Amino acid sequence: MNVLDQCERAREASLQIAAASTDVKNLVLYELAEDLRVNKSKIITANKKDLSENRKLPEAMLKRLKVDESKINDMVAMVASVAKLDDPVGKVLSKTELDKKLILEKVTVPIGVIACIFESRPEVVVQISALAIKSGNVVLLKGGAEAANTNKVLADIIRKSIKDNEGIPEDAVQLLETREQVRKILQMDDFIDLLIPRGSNELVKYIQNHTKIAVLGHAEGICHVYVDVKADMQKALDICVDAKCQYPAVCNAMETLLVHKAIAQEFLPKIKQRYDAAKVELRGDIKTRKILQGIKAASEKDWNTEYNDLILSIKIVNDVDEAIKHINKYGSGHTDAIVTENKTTANRFLQLVDSSSVVHNASTRFADGFRYGLGAEVGISTNKIHARGPVGLEGLVIYKFMLKGDGHIVATYSGEKARKFTHKRL
Amino acid sequence: MNVLDQCERAREASLQIAAASTDVKNLVLYELAEDLRVNKSKIITANKKDLSENRKLPEAMLKRLKVDESKINDMVAMVASVAKLDDPVGKVLSKTELDKKLILEKVTVPIGVIACIFESRPEVVVQISALAIKSGNVVLLKGGAEAANTNKVLADIIRKSIKDNEGIPEDAVQLLETREQVRKILQMDDFIDLLIPRGSNELVKYIQNHTKIAVLGHAEGICHVYVDVKADMQKALDICVDAKCQYPAVCNAMETLLVHKAIAQEFLPKIKQRYDAAKVELRGDIKTRKILQGIKAASEKDWNTEYNDLILSIKIVNDVDEAIKHINKYGSGHTDAIVTENKTTANRFLQLVDSSSVVHNASTRFADGFRYGLGAEVGISTNKIHARGPVGLEGLVIYKFMLKGDGHIVATYSGEKARKFTHKRL
Repeated sequence: MNVLDQCERAREASLQIAAASTDVKNLVLYELAEDLRVNKSKIITANKKDLSENRKLPEAMLKRLKVDESKINDMVAMVASVAKLDDPVGKVLSKTELDKKLILEKVTVPIGVIACIFESRPEVVVQISALAIKSGNVVLLKGGAEAANTNKVLADIIRKSIKDNEGIPEDAVQLLETREQVRKILQMDDFIDLLIPRGSNELVKYIQNHTKIAVLGHAEGICHVYVDVKADMQKALDICVDAKCQYPAVCNAMETLLVHKAIAQEFLPKIKQRYDAAKVELRGDIKTRKILQGIKAASEKDWNTEYNDLILSIKIVNDVDEAIKHINKYGSGHTDAIVTENKTTANRFLQLVDSSSVVHNASTRFADGFRYGLGAEVGISTNKIHARGPVGLEGLVIYKFMLKGDGHIVATYSGEKARKFTHKRL
Repeated sequence: MNVLDQCERAREASLQIAAASTDVKNLVLYELAEDLRVNKSKIITANKKDLSENRKLPEAMLKRLKVDESKINDMVAMVASVAKLDDPVGKVLSKTELDKKLILEKVTVPIGVIACIFESRPEVVVQISALAIKSGNVVLLKGGAEAANTNKVLADIIRKSIKDNEGIPEDAVQLLETREQVRKILQMDDFIDLLIPRGSNELVKYIQNHTKIAVLGHAEGICHVYVDVKADMQKALDICVDAKCQYPAVCNAMETLLVHKAIAQEFLPKIKQRYDAAKVELRGDIKTRKILQGIKAASEKDWNTEYNDLILSIKIVNDVDEAIKHINKYGSGHTDAIVTENKTTANRFLQLVDSSSVVHNASTRFADGFRYGLGAEVGISTNKIHARGPVGLEGLVIYKFMLKGDGHIVATYSGEKARKFTHKRL
């Protein structure tokens, strides 16, 4: 299949699905949930083929690639939960009377055509498709080559659920199968409204650097925890362990720990005990290494590094302002936390740290669409426009202005005898 | 001044102005209104210099370049009106209890650093600066070379108003003065969060094609009016004249008229009379020219052309669906209108035409921030993400998530004895 053809059919489909009713979209989702359940063995068979063809991949990747009955149950539950979410389309954001019988409404509409490029985890096919259908968008999906068989079966199931119900064109969900197609997709700015890459820093950066299409996502997650002089010691210890060790391979795990100089002498040896038990490698600045003798030195490069591993850099700072400055300079605008009992200090941190999630007295690991209660997420964005932080259905819509009049013309409101607008909020 | 220096100072300033209170921002705006009034003669003197140095420019451009007492009064009124608008920053968009004492808020914040590149009209300096200050953003401004003296005086007045009040750094508003600086700005994606170009199609397209920074705006305004079989004849005539003739040089003027085949025989000769009186050149498809004999032929190129002039292309269509298809194919997603008394047809058009403004029984010329009641506008966007249509203060903010806990860690919510989230909307 030619990519230009796919894009043209996607654009055409987007104009149709935009008008689909909530009922039609939910019917498709409920059938999809059922079809996933019915086709369990077919999915698992395809996945076994992927697993056997990619035996040489690292353990962690194989674990992400594997689809078993429990993962399919999770997909079924996820699709059903998306069906239960409010329809994000058709919401009237504002309504204004410009003049008698001249009414302006700002109404949410789907974005249009979205392309999602991801690696390894096949459940992303189902997750993104469900969110796209619910929000009236068309989606082009490109998964990792290692999951090709699983992705194909999942996409076929999704397209069949769409086809079995009238009102949404089958082309609302399309799979791209080669890397060459991805390269072409990046040039299709006339057809694609938004790109969502999910995967390694390299993948995301490559895409950001090779397209004019808007990209939603994040390349790096260099997250910080700042332990303030007024921190509660127990909370600080628990949060620092959770943020680093609970799942170190993910974007919202802590990479750099900042500690107030007046509490460092007490706090650092205690946290080191906990980290030693969890086998975390520590790297410190000069001041830190005066307290934690024998740990490695942290260089300028460490402050810029997302380890995604059991490694942590530590720096002692003079006050909250130095912590804020460090985070705004070296952070990736993803998620940063402060531990303190002083509310003024906490508020200063929450206001001045320029990140998508700012956290007081809790772990950075909470920054996630499911934990935030968004239902499901298309990803986490560190963009400064459109959508920031964990992005759920709300990030997949935009709005249009609908103006309804009764023959109104602008000439009436211009010149010497200009009629005035009422501009009344309704 | 080195562009990198300016960008670094802009970024630094953005972190400060983001925390400025509504009162501080309004104080600066009220002083700015006063300072513009006091410095009228200084502004007019600088503007006279620009006018005399650019005597050879076309009449229309000189008219846009000229700043007289009445235009300064308009600027003063505009700045005061921005001061009166609600502060778009610090609004709580949603509040969710994730669990006891673990509260998530989604709060509006400024975008950060915005660069605006525009042509000719010096009042844009004041308009964009006022909106940027109110929304807590830093702005880098580059105006046309022909307005250099006027722009400099205006920027100096703005910076003085900022300096006279504590709480906002002077570098929140900076002027760029050379074209070379603009080329450099386009590469500053580490410092600049949003580009807003205002001017010719060529300017906007050049910028869109030469930067990785998000661009807000529109290149073309190819707007349509569709006159349906159920149109009220008088409304159709008035709207078509207004949309084409009231101000043909602007982006929301009509470029192509679509007419239902069953009403064409009656409507076209009548509208031709009105257009002849207004000296509008008509170009028609084959069917149109059977009714309006002697007018020029419209080619494929005409459907893609923004004339910005007293020229109009006309096409006869079979029904509303052909009109919608034509608009979605050839339009620029700016503003498109239908004239009909049939509500079902109107709703179909409003829903299926994929444009930033869709209009029923009113002129396309209403699509404008002032007429829509937004207070002031930074421009009109045909983007499909972030902000669409006329963009006011709301388009200059994004949000961040603020999570406030009491020592909460993710480990509590994982594994076998996982605690459940409450996800209660507050």
